[in-house]
Amino acid sequence: MNNPQLNRHGELIHLLSTEGLPREILTHILDTAANFVGVHQREVKKLPLLRGKSVFNLFFENSTRTRTTFEIAATRLSADVINLDIARSSAAKGESLLDTIANLSAMAADIFVVRHSESGAPYLIAQHVAPHVHVINAGDGRHAHPTQGLLDMYTIRHHKGDFSQLSVAIVGDVLHSRVARSDIHALRTLGCPDVRVVGPRTLVPPDLAAMGVRVCHELEEGIRGCDVVITLRLQNERMNGALLPSSQEYFQRFGLTPERLRWAKPDAIVMHPGPVNRGVEIASSVVDGAQSVVLEQVTFGIAVRMAVMGIVAANEA
Amino acid sequence: MNNPQLNRHGELIHLLSTEGLPREILTHILDTAANFVGVHQREVKKLPLLRGKSVFNLFFENSTRTRTTFEIAATRLSADVINLDIARSSAAKGESLLDTIANLSAMAADIFVVRHSESGAPYLIAQHVAPHVHVINAGDGRHAHPTQGLLDMYTIRHHKGDFSQLSVAIVGDVLHSRVARSDIHALRTLGCPDVRVVGPRTLVPPDLAAMGVRVCHELEEGIRGCDVVITLRLQNERMNGALLPSSQEYFQRFGLTPERLRWAKPDAIVMHPGPVNRGVEIASSVVDGAQSVVLEQVTFGIAVRMAVMGIVAANEA
Amino acid sequence: MNNPQLNRHGELIHLLSTEGLPREILTHILDTAANFVGVHQREVKKLPLLRGKSVFNLFFENSTRTRTTFEIAATRLSADVINLDIARSSAAKGESLLDTIANLSAMAADIFVVRHSESGAPYLIAQHVAPHVHVINAGDGRHAHPTQGLLDMYTIRHHKGDFSQLSVAIVGDVLHSRVARSDIHALRTLGCPDVRVVGPRTLVPPDLAAMGVRVCHELEEGIRGCDVVITLRLQNERMNGALLPSSQEYFQRFGLTPERLRWAKPDAIVMHPGPVNRGVEIASSVVDGAQSVVLEQVTFGIAVRMAVMGIVAANEA
Repeated sequence: MNNPQLNRHGELIHLLSTEGLPREILTHILDTAANFVGVHQREVKKLPLLRGKSVFNLFFENSTRTRTTFEIAATRLSADVINLDIARSSAAKGESLLDTIANLSAMAADIFVVRHSESGAPYLIAQHVAPHVHVINAGDGRHAHPTQGLLDMYTIRHHKGDFSQLSVAIVGDVLHSRVARSDIHALRTLGCPDVRVVGPRTLVPPDLAAMGVRVCHELEEGIRGCDVVITLRLQNERMNGALLPSSQEYFQRFGLTPERLRWAKPDAIVMHPGPVNRGVEIASSVVDGAQSVVLEQVTFGIAVRMAVMGIVAANEA
Repeated sequence: MNNPQLNRHGELIHLLSTEGLPREILTHILDTAANFVGVHQREVKKLPLLRGKSVFNLFFENSTRTRTTFEIAATRLSADVINLDIARSSAAKGESLLDTIANLSAMAADIFVVRHSESGAPYLIAQHVAPHVHVINAGDGRHAHPTQGLLDMYTIRHHKGDFSQLSVAIVGDVLHSRVARSDIHALRTLGCPDVRVVGPRTLVPPDLAAMGVRVCHELEEGIRGCDVVITLRLQNERMNGALLPSSQEYFQRFGLTPERLRWAKPDAIVMHPGPVNRGVEIASSVVDGAQSVVLEQVTFGIAVRMAVMGIVAANEA
Repeated sequence: MNNPQLNRHGELIHLLSTEGLPREILTHILDTAANFVGVHQREVKKLPLLRGKSVFNLFFENSTRTRTTFEIAATRLSADVINLDIARSSAAKGESLLDTIANLSAMAADIFVVRHSESGAPYLIAQHVAPHVHVINAGDGRHAHPTQGLLDMYTIRHHKGDFSQLSVAIVGDVLHSRVARSDIHALRTLGCPDVRVVGPRTLVPPDLAAMGVRVCHELEEGIRGCDVVITLRLQNERMNGALLPSSQEYFQRFGLTPERLRWAKPDAIVMHPGPVNRGVEIASSVVDGAQSVVLEQVTFGIAVRMAVMGIVAANEA
């Protein structure tokens, strides 16, 4: 079966999902990102790697935070960045997605960073772009958010060294979370032996067991002895249904408090993709506590996105 | 009579309309653009021609597509680009157009790219800017869209070599189309002997005959034997009136289908300014067919806009 | 008492207000700006002072004009600029101000330019940013707009040489004006012996006398013999109350007409922070007259903002 993310030499040309990416490629991205974090710490903020290249931020769904991290990453590689708020533009004139993409390709773009509310949209785009264009998925529906998955892997590796002995718990609204799916695929590929998802039955989809993860519906069982606790944002804005818990109910059963965090290993790290709902999925004192690496995730996210852009731009379709 | 687009040496300092531009200037723009297309194909994407210059995109009317092409063109000449979505800003505080322009001039802008819903607004602006500022019309009301006209000329010349033997048909909603007017003026000046406009009586203004074009109300008569067919977008969003055709009625009488395209010469090219309404003014199979040069128009549009900016910035008021 | 704007060496690290800034720092900013105006006039538009630095424009309140001047200033120092329209982004997802700030700090920003509708927000931000981030207040509520105050000082010094003999009148809606407060503090610190505020009782707050200014409720008394008349915008959009004058009533009593301007010194200059309400706080013929320096203020504003950014970025917390 053909992997649309790789060229015939097995090199990364699009980043659409962590699913289906070989371990060597995941590791190569993390290693490359490590160089960029290093560059950043040495106060050499700008590299000429993408000088003269055009990165188009195609946000069919608004996300200032994610757009900004890609814009910064591209700028630090000296690319030119064009922001297109597509939700408010040609789409409104009735142009189809593929016509929009064909037109933007014709403007000699090099990289499309795509955020879309429909799962699969970046795949469709990758199938139809001109050969010189690379597509990076910045979040599609409930499906995938691979750069978030990769920055999570970077953060874990930074603190824990390697994945072969780790227990990682992903807690919360797994149902609506493209982050959870991207994390799970990456963790499995990188050799993590114990991945657990934890949440109420209404927020954990039944197909997850098939992905090789352990499903838990009690927080204590889910995070006991873990090295890493990834808390997820309760996606209030994506929910519509009477079966879902209120914020208070959720916090009572699954909110990560300092007391509950003691169920995990003493040196466990606590992660969150942001933005955090303090007092809903996680207590404020945990977000700001010694085990939290939430802000490091943001910093590493820039380096990981630099790495992904640098790598795909160097490979030919 | 004074031409506000030219300085006293007859050099281009503003691009407001293709009307009134001498043939040598039109040809100079197309020749310059040809260099930039060449640069682009040789993968030298960035030139220092406008380094340190500030291009202000002043969009009093929203247009992501056109704004983006100007932003890319300016960036590839190393200019700094400032995007101003004026519709949502100072204008809302009751500031007059000329006060806004005076303020922006005082910020040491070099080029204003202006899109405005009122015909003539870029002329008014050009009359009032400081001498160091050059104005480029990116579409004003129903009046003109000169860079679209120029990129259309570039595309025709690229495929047909020269204008002296050509038959060009412009099909569709000529009434609401600033593109049609800009094309007609440029075609006449460049020596095209046979320009036809084709459309229902309600969409073709009666004053066109005075511009030296042939007016046709039947598609077959209009495109028979043509070298170039320029289809126009049915501007649904600009229409308000009971006399106008529905999309289906329009397609039945004037939609460009593969069968009807056979009325033109076998090597005729098909153009469209975009965004395309597939199945309204043109059949999908024609847009995507071998005679379509629609996406080339987009690519050439970048080079033409680079040329216009480079030329005006080099000339002194 | 600790001044959050200065480091322990007394160097400027944040610009939050003109209040509390020592005279040497005000003068240093104006002197630095003078160099940048000079650079600009010599047509050397771009300096590498902030190359590789990231300036984040954080506009919690919309202001195209102010955002644009900061963007241009940063660009001319070769910084990378990231525009964040926070009003429409994460804030909408319920993230707190300090979480937003912590996240943006983690993206390795160097300078935050902050516009916020709440007085004091930039102080709060400055207290919580990482040590490598410098905060510049671009207007907070009714409190302060220090770069406007500084560009006003620049303009006055440019025309009048020094402050020690000057009479300066600030006319209009002082109550709602952060510009007036920033001007008054700067004028006092720079040694201006005679500062007057002029306006109807409903628009002049009673606490101003404590700031060492003379309060006048008649225009003639207020501007008689002045060297500088600073007119303020009537902030219609901030007003809600039956005690406030209509535009016509205001113009009749306080509008600056050519006749009334004769009450000031013959060489008095007329200033306005913009955007101007012509025929409300000032007659059109005065805005466009020989004594008006309104557009110079805009030009100097770029240089002053370049100076402030260059200075804070060079100092360590």
